[in-house]
Formats: sequence, structure tokens, C-alpha cells
Amino acid sequence: MGTEFLNIKEVDEAKKIIKKLFNQYYAPKSEKIDIENSYNRVIFKDIISSIDLPPFNRSLMDGFAVKAEDTFGADDENPKELKCIDSIEAGSFSEKTIEHGECIEISTGAPIPKGADAIAMVEFSEREDNDIFILKSVAPRQDLAIKGSDIAKDKLLLKEKTILSSDKIGVLAAQGIKEIETYKKPKIAIISTGNELITSVNSLEYGKIYDTNSYSIQTGIIDNGGDAEIKGIVKDDYDQLKDKIEESLEDSDIVICSGGTSAGVGDVLRHVLDEIGEVIIHGISVKPGKPTIVGIVNNKLVIGLPGNPVSALIIFYVFIVPNIRKLAGLNEIEENKITKAILTKRIHTPKGRMQYSLVQIKEGLAYPIMKDSGAITSLADADGYIKIPKMVELVDEGEEVEIRLFK
Amino acid sequence: MGTEFLNIKEVDEAKKIIKKLFNQYYAPKSEKIDIENSYNRVIFKDIISSIDLPPFNRSLMDGFAVKAEDTFGADDENPKELKCIDSIEAGSFSEKTIEHGECIEISTGAPIPKGADAIAMVEFSEREDNDIFILKSVAPRQDLAIKGSDIAKDKLLLKEKTILSSDKIGVLAAQGIKEIETYKKPKIAIISTGNELITSVNSLEYGKIYDTNSYSIQTGIIDNGGDAEIKGIVKDDYDQLKDKIEESLEDSDIVICSGGTSAGVGDVLRHVLDEIGEVIIHGISVKPGKPTIVGIVNNKLVIGLPGNPVSALIIFYVFIVPNIRKLAGLNEIEENKITKAILTKRIHTPKGRMQYSLVQIKEGLAYPIMKDSGAITSLADADGYIKIPKMVELVDEGEEVEIRLFK
Repeated sequence: MGTEFLNIKEVDEAKKIIKKLFNQYYAPKSEKIDIENSYNRVIFKDIISSIDLPPFNRSLMDGFAVKAEDTFGADDENPKELKCIDSIEAGSFSEKTIEHGECIEISTGAPIPKGADAIAMVEFSEREDNDIFILKSVAPRQDLAIKGSDIAKDKLLLKEKTILSSDKIGVLAAQGIKEIETYKKPKIAIISTGNELITSVNSLEYGKIYDTNSYSIQTGIIDNGGDAEIKGIVKDDYDQLKDKIEESLEDSDIVICSGGTSAGVGDVLRHVLDEIGEVIIHGISVKPGKPTIVGIVNNKLVIGLPGNPVSALIIFYVFIVPNIRKLAGLNEIEENKITKAILTKRIHTPKGRMQYSLVQIKEGLAYPIMKDSGAITSLADADGYIKIPKMVELVDEGEEVEIRLFK
Repeated sequence: MGTEFLNIKEVDEAKKIIKKLFNQYYAPKSEKIDIENSYNRVIFKDIISSIDLPPFNRSLMDGFAVKAEDTFGADDENPKELKCIDSIEAGSFSEKTIEHGECIEISTGAPIPKGADAIAMVEFSEREDNDIFILKSVAPRQDLAIKGSDIAKDKLLLKEKTILSSDKIGVLAAQGIKEIETYKKPKIAIISTGNELITSVNSLEYGKIYDTNSYSIQTGIIDNGGDAEIKGIVKDDYDQLKDKIEESLEDSDIVICSGGTSAGVGDVLRHVLDEIGEVIIHGISVKPGKPTIVGIVNNKLVIGLPGNPVSALIIFYVFIVPNIRKLAGLNEIEENKITKAILTKRIHTPKGRMQYSLVQIKEGLAYPIMKDSGAITSLADADGYIKIPKMVELVDEGEEVEIRLFK
């Protein structure tokens, strides 16, 4: 139970090193997916429109395709008579060309026949066999959509890094795009370590607690564009942890452990990383979360978060999330997840160490969460966290603070 | 291409009828799912805590479990000497009871041994073999978390209809809950009809367009708690549509069609519903979206939306979404999806018919989208829609309007 850390870094330095490691060992990858499954995925490269929309001059109404000129002056008293020479349903077309004095019956969505330049609505017409009486004059281009007026061919349709919302998927579908190249989600394995941890299939023996970190980190990964797999719990045991990490590295891009990182007796992860790879960071000068480890094994990152649920999640959000987001094609920080509020209670902090403190937000006020940092309800109550710089000893009641929201 | 509607309803009446049909034919169902897959799911019934958290009096620090009284007066100059009689790692426990003058070495997270009432931190101690010198006095209960102080047993843990966010899943995990009863997502089949529609596997023949409604309705369903399956395109053909609806009803709770609903030649869906079930609503007095059909087949709802993408999506949001949400355990309307903005341009509407108009929002201003209603980009540009009551003929520039956001 000592406090020996090998390679303690300041917060900004640690951020820089971790970012550099991500850049060095990972590049965004893409995968093609069916647009049916593309909701909320991120576009990998610019998409250029391949067809005009509408793809042809299209009727916007049920009625008659006419030469507008033929209808000029028409009203109830002075109907203009036209001969109907064909009929076009949506999905079909007419080979005929209308001449002066002629019209073609047309459905909404059907292509405008040659010779016509406007639609006379069926509501303002009367019909006797093939004699159509137009009761209202129409202007050229009335009630038709010109080819390419909605989306023109060969234009930028959707930019890279666009998130595929409902409307954007609609645009792709309208272009006849079936598959789309999207950012591949980085695959992240999650391991919880600790002799005190058990999974919920077991009953709770004295001295044990159920693992929660696997689940909070899992949803944190999902929320930020990654693909998470819970690999289970291992004891603070060198061989068990080594085997689990090696197994996890086989089918994952990144491995995130929590627990087993403290200096002293519990420091199994450091020894494993020393043996099978390299420890880059051991300890960050931050509260909570000092016992954080970052290592490289087989050109992949293995990250050790503290075992304490609050510390684990804060370290994960501060140091890891922006890098996962970047790899997933997302902005490193979501702008709408930063907000400001007035602190309701003074927070004292240890000078000389950056501190992150959980807060709950209610009606523009930020309430610090003062529970002990092992309390699972402190995470349940928290909306986000504030950052207190290294040289600040207290943030006073009534000060405006900037909050990074979890959700 | 006539305009004969069988059973036209006013908007409020139609809403009421559709709501009643949902209540009559559907009841929320539940399903048990693993908490690993429970993210964003909705809890079906209140969950009561089954264990205390922490489950035992727990050390918050690495150090020594002591009788606080034994440390009173201790400082660097006057250390108090205690005999260390055991050591407890997290996950294990000690059978021993400490007496005055004794202590037990303890790790963060380990259970407090009998006789101890506080933790003396390792940082404020010195050790010579089993002689421990306490350098700072501690108060009773210092640095320990009392059993049940985080979450007490037999209390309401999570209310029904709670949406399972990251922190809530953490709370379930901490309670050792592996599986959770959640609202089952209503399963909804989507069919697009129209001779002009083709899927993207086909190249675009003259007069045809690619289907977009399937995709925009699909994501609308997903966004609102449902499970959507795209069943494909059928022609405006009685037998094809009938077969597709019957096949879709087999494995879905609800069937949503778009297109094929107009009065007149295209009115295939009405005939199918008349034959295999019952038409309840045919036509709603609303713009856009008049040709909407609601029917019942084999005690299941079959809904026909207009073919036009804008009309289809608006009708879907106004009449169907609140009912899907209720079935999925969600609030019928999400409060944070209603906002207000100032209209930048006058909108004229046909008096005597409720109108819904798409708007785009920029910096607190609502810009009406004036494109023709077949334009796919009008959906891509829209942030939501405003409702203009039946008796209103125009909404003026500068008026504040209430907007229902899509996302």
C-alpha cells in the first residue's frame, strides 16, 4: 500500500502524450454499411450527387399538362377547350408531344410530356370525353418541378463527418444510394479488475461488491462513437490480468481496464504492461484519478483507469473520450455538452493538483456533489463535472463555472 | 383522379380516434433484457433496491482501521503507537476484533473489522514491523462509508418509465441486477407504394424516383421508441399490396404504408383495407396530408400515409408518433422538442383546414420552407413544423410561433 508512481505527469502533458499515442497508433478507418443501418453513423468522405432530383420535369398536381399560352384568359365564363391526347400515371410516361390545342392528363409525380410547359389542376377543369375545358389560366412552369431543381447532379451532397440523421438518410435514399462509407467505430474492450469485484451472477459474499465500472464505461464509449465490449472481471492477479489483456487485444483496437492501478500491492497492471509492452504514463497529477496508467502493447493502447467509479469515469471523459471521438469522426468535444452555471457551494481543492468535481445542475445552478467518491449515487446524481485549475485553492459560492456534461 | 374521400375527419377528431384505436388494440408489453444491452431502454416497473450499498462498512482510504479514541491527541511530535494485528485487502475480510491499542492494516474498499470505528490514512503513519505510529488524530467514522449510506435496501431505486442512461445502468449493476424488465419496443413494418418508386438496387428509368419515405419513417420510428422494419416497395396493385400487408402483419404490431392513398385511381390501399379489414378514417382535413387512411386488420392498425415525403412525415409525427411513444413507455410529446421562434416570413393558409408548415430555425428565427412539397431537400432543411389552426388565414412575419422539432 505504498504510493510509488513511476512516471507522474501533469494533466496537460498527459493529455498531449495520450493524444500523440492515439495519432501514432491509430488512423480512422471506414466501413461500408447499408443506409438502413446508417442512422447516427458518420460519413467518411464527401458525397457528390450522382443524379438530378427530380430526375425529370415532374408534375406537382393531378391535372392536365398544357401549353400555358393555350390557357391565357381562361375563366369560368370563358373556358378554353383542349383535346386530351394521352394520360400519364406516376411511374409511366408518354411518348407523345402536345401541340397547340392539346393536353395530356397527368398524375402528381408523373413526367411532363414534350410540348407542355405547365399543369392545369383538375379542380379547375371540366371534362366531356376527350374534350377538356380549362377554367383558370395557368402561367408557364406552374405546378411543375424542373429536373434538378431540388438537388442538381455533381454537387456536394453531404460533407465528410456529417452525422446521418433521418433527413440526411432520406437525401441518400432519394439519390439511390444503397450503401455508404462511414467511420468504423473503434472497438474497445473493457476489463474490470479487483479481488473485491463480482458479477451479478454471483451472490454477494461479505467484503465483495458488484462491478459497475464496466457498465458506466461501456455506455460512455457508446455515447462517444465507439463500440464497447465488456470482457468481464479479473482478480488482482498477474497471470489472470495478463491473459485477459492479451485475449482482449486480439479482437479490439483499445483495451480499457479499471482498478488494479494503485501504486503498491494492488499495482498488477503496471507489472503486466512492463512485461508484455511498455508503460508510458503511470500516475497523473489530478484529483481524482492519480493512479492512471497508459501503456502500449503490440501497437495498441492499454489504459488503466482507477478502480473508484467516480475517478474512473472522470479520467475516461477527460483523457480518453476526445480521442475516441476523433477516431470515430466526431468533434473531439461536443459543443452542446459544455454549459455554464452558478456554483451553490464553495469547493476547496488541494493546491498543486488539477481537480475535477462532479456537479448536479438544477435551474442554472451547479450543486457540488459532496458524497464520498466511492458512492455510486454520486454518479447517478451528477450531470457533469467542473475543472479546477492547479493553482486554485477554492472556487467560491456564486462563481460562474463551466460544466462538461456527461449527457 | 377524383377527389372522393369516404370518411373525412377534422384533425382533433382524427387524433382522438387514432388514440382510442391504439388504446383498444394495444397494451404496453415488457421484455427482460441484459443490462449490457439496456442503454436508452425504458424501465417497465418500479425497481426496489435489494441490497444495501455499500453492502458493509467500507474503508475509503488505504491505512489502518483503528478505534478513533486511541488516536486522539496524535501529531508528528506525539505519535500514538498501535499494534497491527492483521491486514485486509479489498475483497477479503478479517475475523479479528480490534481492542484498544490495536489496529488492522486496510485497503480502500475493504470491510472495516469489528472494534474499529475510523480509518487512519497511511500517509499520516509510520511503521516499524507491526508497530504503527499514528501521526494525526482521526474522528469517529472518519474515512469510512457506512453500510447502506449510498443506497439503502428496500427503497425505491428507479421508477417505472425511467430511461436507462449510463448512470442508471451503473446503479443497477451496483445492485447486482443482471436483467431488467423494460418496455418492449412496438414492432412496426414500413411499406412504400407507388408505380413510380424503385429501390436503389435498380437503375433509374425515366419517370421513376427512388423511395425515400421508408427511410425517413424508419428513423422517425427508431427515434420515438419503436422497432422499424422496412418491407420494401409495392406497385399500386391490389394483390401485391394485399399480400405485402398480410405478410407484414404476421410479424409486426403495426403496419405503416405510404403512397397509394389518394382518392381516385391510385386508391388501392382503401380497397385492400375494405376487403381484409375495416377502414376507420379515410381523409383528414389537414394540409398537407389529406389522403391519410387508418384501418384495422386482424386487430392491428394499418396506417396509410400520403406518398409525398413531406406530407408523410408530418402526418406521421402529428398523428402516429405520440401513440408509438406511449406504447414504448415514453412521454407522448418530448417537452424539449417544443420550442418558440419568430417567423421571418408571412405564411398564407387555406381557411377551413388545419395546416402544418415546415420551418428551419436559425438564431431564434423560424424560416418557413417554401419549396414544393415533393422536394426532398425541404425535409433536409427543416428543423420542425408549426401548426396553423383551421380558422387562421395567415401567420404574419414577426409573430412568435411554436415549433415541434423533429430532432
